[in-house]
Amino acid sequence: MQLPSALLEQAVNEFSKLPGIGKKTALRLVLHLLKQEPEKVEAFGAALLRMRKDTHICQRCYNISDSLLCSICSNPMRKQELICVVESIRDVIAIESTQQYNGTYHVLGGIISPLDGVGPDQLYIEPLVKRVQEDGIQELIFALNPTIQGDTTIYYIQKKIQPSTVKVTTIARGIAFGGELEYADEMTLARSLQHRMPVENLKV
Amino acid sequence: MQLPSALLEQAVNEFSKLPGIGKKTALRLVLHLLKQEPEKVEAFGAALLRMRKDTHICQRCYNISDSLLCSICSNPMRKQELICVVESIRDVIAIESTQQYNGTYHVLGGIISPLDGVGPDQLYIEPLVKRVQEDGIQELIFALNPTIQGDTTIYYIQKKIQPSTVKVTTIARGIAFGGELEYADEMTLARSLQHRMPVENLKV
Ligand SMILES: [Zn+2]
Ligand SMILES: [Zn+2]
Repeated sequence: MQLPSALLEQAVNEFSKLPGIGKKTALRLVLHLLKQEPEKVEAFGAALLRMRKDTHICQRCYNISDSLLCSICSNPMRKQELICVVESIRDVIAIESTQQYNGTYHVLGGIISPLDGVGPDQLYIEPLVKRVQEDGIQELIFALNPTIQGDTTIYYIQKKIQPSTVKVTTIARGIAFGGELEYADEMTLARSLQHRMPVENLKV
Repeated sequence: MQLPSALLEQAVNEFSKLPGIGKKTALRLVLHLLKQEPEKVEAFGAALLRMRKDTHICQRCYNISDSLLCSICSNPMRKQELICVVESIRDVIAIESTQQYNGTYHVLGGIISPLDGVGPDQLYIEPLVKRVQEDGIQELIFALNPTIQGDTTIYYIQKKIQPSTVKVTTIARGIAFGGELEYADEMTLARSLQHRMPVENLKV
């Protein structure tokens, strides 16, 4: 792509560094900004920088937060004795958007994946074990992706918190609602058979 | 979408103002920036603001430029007596990317479209007429979208520059290379028949 302005090209290059944004999309976005008032463009950049500089990582659950303790950890209406263990902030947002969960979270910051060089020490596992041991936690719900790495992470943490009376569960796995059985992969299908549940559990 | 941070939410909102960027995409982009060094995020915003504030509109052709005269208008290797008339900067970029054109441009800033309230006075038609009359222009190549509005714009400008000895052409219209005849719309097909060309013109 031949761009008639070096400044335009720099802006396009910056946008194309973002995941999933190719040169053509970047150009479309930049030409849109070119038509906006300079104040609007300034506000855009300022909002991003403020987000990057002024947000915190919650000291308890490692979720993103505007203060030292996140809005979930500091909310007395949420069940503080219930922890949902997730890989990332995106998972917190996804679960919160269901509006079906009233406990707290613990963001691991990734999952154990030796092939990617991610071991337990790079994750927030130690503070999770500490929470379980010291904060009167009653249940740990693992909401990790149903992969080998996810399972490895669950087993590792479960071992770490022993001995403990805390209840440990994982979100249900199976054929996605609305999904088609014939397109499900073998492992999902095998597990769905293995973890079959009484028909009475189906909400109709 | 329930976001755990107001600052995060503001950043997501700013991103979703961009064309074609929904909330989910915006969140993905923002969470990517959250993981970058603050300096990187600052550089991103700065590049956008610099592009918006420090680029010029070329005084001659109304293309985007880093100086008062754009890199094409100020290039003595380009045929200054040849003007390709386009609707927008994006069209200049598209044609430049073919690396097949060695003349100059004139960006109209839109096309005549009464239904959208765009008349000749809102476009850079007057300065184009002046260029044709004063700058020894030999050929005007219209590269507008082949629509009613595009054609109206061509006829209007052609009338405005009369009397004149300048050659006026338009880019070829027809079935797109690789396109399928049966899917072409009627007008394209009708025009392709009307403007049929000798087989010798085909480059094989
Ligand atoms: Zn928290
Ligand atoms: Zn120019």
